[in-house]
Amino acid sequence: MRLSILGCYSATPRAMTNTTAQVLEINNNMFLIDCGEGTQVHLRKHKIKFNRIKRIFISHLHGDHFFGLVGLISTFRLLTREADLHVYGPKGIKEIVTLQMKLADSWTNYNLYFHELSSKESELIFEDDTVEVHTIPLKHRIYTNGYLFKEKPHERKIISHAAEEANINVAYYRKLKQGFDVKNEDGVLIDHTLVTTPGKKPQSYAFCSDTVYKEDIIPIIKNVDVLYHESTFLDQHVHLTERTKHATAKQAATIAKKANAGTLLLGHYSTRYGSIKPFKDEAKLVFDNVELCEDGKTFDF
Amino acid sequence: MRLSILGCYSATPRAMTNTTAQVLEINNNMFLIDCGEGTQVHLRKHKIKFNRIKRIFISHLHGDHFFGLVGLISTFRLLTREADLHVYGPKGIKEIVTLQMKLADSWTNYNLYFHELSSKESELIFEDDTVEVHTIPLKHRIYTNGYLFKEKPHERKIISHAAEEANINVAYYRKLKQGFDVKNEDGVLIDHTLVTTPGKKPQSYAFCSDTVYKEDIIPIIKNVDVLYHESTFLDQHVHLTERTKHATAKQAATIAKKANAGTLLLGHYSTRYGSIKPFKDEAKLVFDNVELCEDGKTFDF
Repeated sequence: MRLSILGCYSATPRAMTNTTAQVLEINNNMFLIDCGEGTQVHLRKHKIKFNRIKRIFISHLHGDHFFGLVGLISTFRLLTREADLHVYGPKGIKEIVTLQMKLADSWTNYNLYFHELSSKESELIFEDDTVEVHTIPLKHRIYTNGYLFKEKPHERKIISHAAEEANINVAYYRKLKQGFDVKNEDGVLIDHTLVTTPGKKPQSYAFCSDTVYKEDIIPIIKNVDVLYHESTFLDQHVHLTERTKHATAKQAATIAKKANAGTLLLGHYSTRYGSIKPFKDEAKLVFDNVELCEDGKTFDF
Repeated sequence: MRLSILGCYSATPRAMTNTTAQVLEINNNMFLIDCGEGTQVHLRKHKIKFNRIKRIFISHLHGDHFFGLVGLISTFRLLTREADLHVYGPKGIKEIVTLQMKLADSWTNYNLYFHELSSKESELIFEDDTVEVHTIPLKHRIYTNGYLFKEKPHERKIISHAAEEANINVAYYRKLKQGFDVKNEDGVLIDHTLVTTPGKKPQSYAFCSDTVYKEDIIPIIKNVDVLYHESTFLDQHVHLTERTKHATAKQAATIAKKANAGTLLLGHYSTRYGSIKPFKDEAKLVFDNVELCEDGKTFDF
């Protein structure tokens, strides 16, 4: 699981700070999460192949999270993309994009699917053989979802010499990998744990931005391996969180602790702060395993 | 008259090339012309004060000319702008911006005026005491206007000692500056040319992008001091101009020559070319005074 931070600051893009966009590689999927203005340029800088992005997840319709979307869709068209593209985001996102296509008289030559969200409950919105994506309803000034990306359980691994010694026909190996006991060539039932080892532990990533401190999300993200939780402010500005519907580093860490997360990633920093180091210091008082997102940084988990 | 090139490449923003945006300073006005994605960041890099931009002129609704507009308007709001903002552009531009504001539940705290254009004839769309702005109807794949920015005639300058010697009351100096003959204290009519010198020659700038080669624009831009004319292609690719509705460097130079322009600026280069130098070489075969736009370059005229 690899996470590339294209942008992790709030409000407006600046010369040295980008607004929110991340690319999550999980198994064979490459998901783009949010798409602030300039994302297509940052994708190029990261040398991420445009054609590998098949699904884009937009948290909410504030500009710092999606103003780069229409440009990216348009560039895909100019580059004569053929692969389907799926966009998940709040109701209204389709109208925004298609209105601009209509007025530009420029329709995509690839299939573009919008999956508009409006539920206030967590939903399974995508799955394939290896991964599931669920929404995480957040509380912000407008309708907002985080996203939970979960690997499905990996298959168990055959211990070849043990399976051979147990005289199991290879036709049953698939069943064994899936965790079933099978009969051997002599008709004896073989405990699968004797001839297989557990598969790699499935990983999970939760993206939670933008939101106030909201304990309701804890059951959804419980035991997540990596949690990105917005921390627009430091605790000294906690009084601003109610009006702006954002969170502090301390609040992000409290969610991470209560959800028993593996690693907490902080981001969506207000540009009012001269340094982002205090965000980590503040969070570590509550939760130990904290990392700071930075534009251009890549995490391998 | 100062022109700052924020971006001058066609199609899509890339790591090293920006799409179209220019800032024209003419007298006390600062006009933004087109607004490709990322323009707000490039304005910051140029250290152009956001509050000085009161009027934005959008040529057409292809993304490389306006995808940065909604972000700029939104950033002005976040920076608690108070000054009015006027946006001139094709019909539909208001709907694109206001739809996104509505879905973000984020309305500007400053006055935002849209001036939607749909005429196919040149129109006077703005004037104040010192400058006029006219549309230049262009021919592209969708409805497109260039813009002609013209200083109004500057007032004549009083030759102080001559006016005193001619015994003219200072109350009449304003009339003299405006080019009228006036009576002196002895009742004698004084020829204004004897006591004034001509004002500074008014300057003009024409922005023509995107367009095919279109001789109809020549009467509108006749004798313009500086002409920006798109040159997406070199002559070797002239066969692409008909389908794409763009022009070559040679065609841009031909328009400059026929319009008796002072200086020709080339831009809107296709990114297919490794170097932009051949654009200048090609244009100079037809018209002598050619300059190449480059991202980040500033011209003083």
